[in-house]
Amino acid sequence: MDRLYDRKNLEALLRDARQAFYRTQVLKPKEKNAVLTRLSGLLRKEKDHVLHENQKDYRNALERGLDPALCDRLLLTEGRYVQMVQGLHDVCALPDPVGRSVDRWTNADGLLIEKVRVPLGVVGVIYESRPNVTVEVFSLCLKAGCCVVLRGGSEALSSNQALADLIRQALSEEGIPPGGATFLPWTDRQAVVDLLSSKDLDVVIPRGGAGLMKLVNEHARVPVLKHDQGICHIYVGASADPEKAMSVVINAKTSRPSTCNAMETLLVHSSHRTTLLPDIVGTLREKEVLVYGCPETRKLGEGILPASPDTYRTEFLSLALNVRQVETLDEALLHIREYGSGHTEAILTRDLEEAERFQMEVDSSCVMVNASTRLHDGFAFGLGAEVGISTSRIHARGTMGLPELTTTKYLVRGNGHLRNA
Amino acid sequence: MDRLYDRKNLEALLRDARQAFYRTQVLKPKEKNAVLTRLSGLLRKEKDHVLHENQKDYRNALERGLDPALCDRLLLTEGRYVQMVQGLHDVCALPDPVGRSVDRWTNADGLLIEKVRVPLGVVGVIYESRPNVTVEVFSLCLKAGCCVVLRGGSEALSSNQALADLIRQALSEEGIPPGGATFLPWTDRQAVVDLLSSKDLDVVIPRGGAGLMKLVNEHARVPVLKHDQGICHIYVGASADPEKAMSVVINAKTSRPSTCNAMETLLVHSSHRTTLLPDIVGTLREKEVLVYGCPETRKLGEGILPASPDTYRTEFLSLALNVRQVETLDEALLHIREYGSGHTEAILTRDLEEAERFQMEVDSSCVMVNASTRLHDGFAFGLGAEVGISTSRIHARGTMGLPELTTTKYLVRGNGHLRNA
Repeated sequence: MDRLYDRKNLEALLRDARQAFYRTQVLKPKEKNAVLTRLSGLLRKEKDHVLHENQKDYRNALERGLDPALCDRLLLTEGRYVQMVQGLHDVCALPDPVGRSVDRWTNADGLLIEKVRVPLGVVGVIYESRPNVTVEVFSLCLKAGCCVVLRGGSEALSSNQALADLIRQALSEEGIPPGGATFLPWTDRQAVVDLLSSKDLDVVIPRGGAGLMKLVNEHARVPVLKHDQGICHIYVGASADPEKAMSVVINAKTSRPSTCNAMETLLVHSSHRTTLLPDIVGTLREKEVLVYGCPETRKLGEGILPASPDTYRTEFLSLALNVRQVETLDEALLHIREYGSGHTEAILTRDLEEAERFQMEVDSSCVMVNASTRLHDGFAFGLGAEVGISTSRIHARGTMGLPELTTTKYLVRGNGHLRNA
Repeated sequence: MDRLYDRKNLEALLRDARQAFYRTQVLKPKEKNAVLTRLSGLLRKEKDHVLHENQKDYRNALERGLDPALCDRLLLTEGRYVQMVQGLHDVCALPDPVGRSVDRWTNADGLLIEKVRVPLGVVGVIYESRPNVTVEVFSLCLKAGCCVVLRGGSEALSSNQALADLIRQALSEEGIPPGGATFLPWTDRQAVVDLLSSKDLDVVIPRGGAGLMKLVNEHARVPVLKHDQGICHIYVGASADPEKAMSVVINAKTSRPSTCNAMETLLVHSSHRTTLLPDIVGTLREKEVLVYGCPETRKLGEGILPASPDTYRTEFLSLALNVRQVETLDEALLHIREYGSGHTEAILTRDLEEAERFQMEVDSSCVMVNASTRLHDGFAFGLGAEVGISTSRIHARGTMGLPELTTTKYLVRGNGHLRNA
C-alpha cells in the first residue's frame, strides 16, 4: 500500500473492518483459536524476515539518536520473539468471553431475561514503539470477537508491517476476511485525527504519552478508553512494618520505572522521620534515584532537590521520586486527591482501620494494602493477559482483560408477552 | 440565581458538584435513604407549590402552541405526582450498589484481588420535558453515590426549579452539600455545549431527540452514554403463532407509540401474505396506524403509502409503521442490519433454530423472542427503576439501572508483595 496518507484509503479500510465484524462477532471459539495457532506457526516460520525488518527499525532509531529506552522497547530480541509467540498460545487457553452469561432472571410475568457478553465491536488501538503489542492486542481482540484497527509508533513501522502481513495471512488462511485486523501504515498525525472521528469505530484505546492524550481530548468523536498517566503514590503509615516498607518502596520505584504503575510519590508518616525514612532515602539514592523532598525530608542530607506542586504533578517514568512527610492519614489522602491521577495507590500499614479508610476513600482504579503498585497488571493479577490499564472511569477501569473487550446484550424470551401501558 | 447564562457560574456549580462527590461517594446506605425519605416528605408537604409551578409551565406551553404530546408529558397530574413520590420509596428499597463485590480471587502468590462497585462520579443528565425525571434521576444517582447535574427541558423550567429546590433542601437537612444535586437554570444552547466539555463531569447521559444528539456528537469532550433513537423491528417468521403475532404486533406499535422501544418496522415472512398479514394490516388501520408498505404489501388495499429507504430509517414515534414482506430469515437480518439502530428487535417464531440464529446474529442492545419490544424497560424487566435505555455500546447497553451508575475499583491486599521485573 502507498504510504502517502489519503483519507479515502483510511475510510475504505475502516469500512472493510466494519464488514469483517459481521463475521468475527459470530466466530466459534475454535475458529478464533485456529487463527491464533496458525499465526504462531507463521511467526515461527517467518522469524528471520520479521527480525530483519525489526533490525531496520532499530538501526534507523539508533541513527536518528532516539531515546535509548525507546530504542530498547523497539527491539525484538530472540527472547521477546519467543515470548510473543508463546503469548498466542496463552490467549488460546483463556476462556472465551463471548456468549458468557452475566445475569439471568425472570420477571413477575415469567419473561426470561438474560444478559450475555458480546464483542465490543471495531476497536482502534493507538500505541507506541513496542512491536510485540501488535500481536498481543490483535490476539486479545480476535479472542473477544472484535476487529482491531492498529496504529503503532512510526519508529516501528517496518516491524509492524511485517507482523500485520502475517496476521492478515493467518486470517485469510482460516477463511476470515482480513478486515479482522487492519494495520494503518501512515505516520501522519492527520491519520490519527481522522481515525478518532470515524463513525466505523466503536471505541478507541489510546496508549501513549501526553501528546497523544492531547490529540485524543481535542479530536475524539468515538468513545475512548484512555491509557493515560499513572502518578502513583505509596503512603507509609505509622504502623508499617519497616522491612516490608523498605522492600515494597524500592520495588515500586526501581523495578521498572518507565511503567505507568511505578511509584512517583512516597508519602511517609512523620513518626518515621529519624529511622525508616533516612534508611529508605539512603537506599533509593544508592540506587541512583533522584529524590525531590519536602522541606522536612530535605533535612535528611545534601543533594535532595526541593519538591513542589509541579514535581508532585509529574509522572517521572524514570529513577526520580517525590518524598513528602505527612502528620496524618488525612493529610496523605488530601495529597493523593490533589495530585494523584487515579491510577494506583498503596498504603503500607498494620492498622486495620487505616487500611480500610484508605481503600474506601482513595478513588483510584486500584487501591492496595501492603503491596507494590507495580503489581497492578493483568499478568500479575493472574488474568493471563491485558490490553492495558484504563484510566477512564467508564466501561473499564484499571487493568483491562478480555471481558473489557466485550459489551453485553439482553436476550429475552417470552411466550407472546405484552406491555401493559 | 440569575437566569442569564454565564459560563463562570456554570463552572462554579460544577466545581461544587465535584467537591460534593467526595462526600456522596462515601455515604452509607442509610444516609442516602434518609435523604430520599426526607425528599418524599418535602414533596408531599409542598405539593400545592410544585403543582402551581407546573401549571405555569403547562399553560405557557399550551399558549405557545407546543405539540400536544409534549404538553401532556409536561403535566404533573395528581396521579403522576403520587407515583413520583412513591418512586423515591421504591429506590430506597433497591439494593445499594456501592461496595458490592463483582469478583474476588487470589493470584498465584496469594495476593488478594477484589473488584468492587464504586460510584461513577459526577453525572450530567440532559433530558426533555417530563419534570418527574428530575426526581427519578436524582434518586437513582444519589443511591449510586453519584452527584447529578440536571439540565431539563426549557418548557419545564419552573416545575424543575421547584423540584430542584426541594431536592437541595433535603440534602442540606441531612447534612450533605447541596452540590450533590445541581440544577442548571439556563435554557441557552451554550450552557449545554459548555456542560458537554467540562472537565468536572465524569459522564453525560443525553436523553432526547436528533437535535440534542447532533449537539452531543459535535461538542462532547466528556464520556457519553447516549439515549438515542430506537428504530425497532419485529420479524414474524413463517412458523409464528398467528394469534400471538397479532397481539404482540399491535402492542408493540400502539400501546405507547411515542417511546423508543415501540416498533417502527414490521417484517413478515411471505407465507403470511394471504392470511395473517392482511389481518394485521387491517387491525393496524382500524387503530389509525398509518402504514408504509413494500410493493407486495401495498397490494393488500388502498391507502397504504409506499415504504422507502427513507421511511425505513425513520423513527416515527407515532402511529405510523413500515411493513415489508421478506422471503427468508436472512433477508430480515439484512434489513435490520441496514436500517436498525441497534436498540430492540424481536422475532415471533415457533422454530428453535430460527430463534437462536436471530438472537445470535442481531447485534442490538435487546433481542427478543415472542415478546413485545415495548417490554425492553427497567421496570418491565423487574429491575425496579431505570435511568433510561442506553444506545451506546460501552459501559451500559440497553436499559440502565443502578449498577450502570457505578464503575469499579480493584482492592488489593498483600503482605509485602513485590513485582518481579
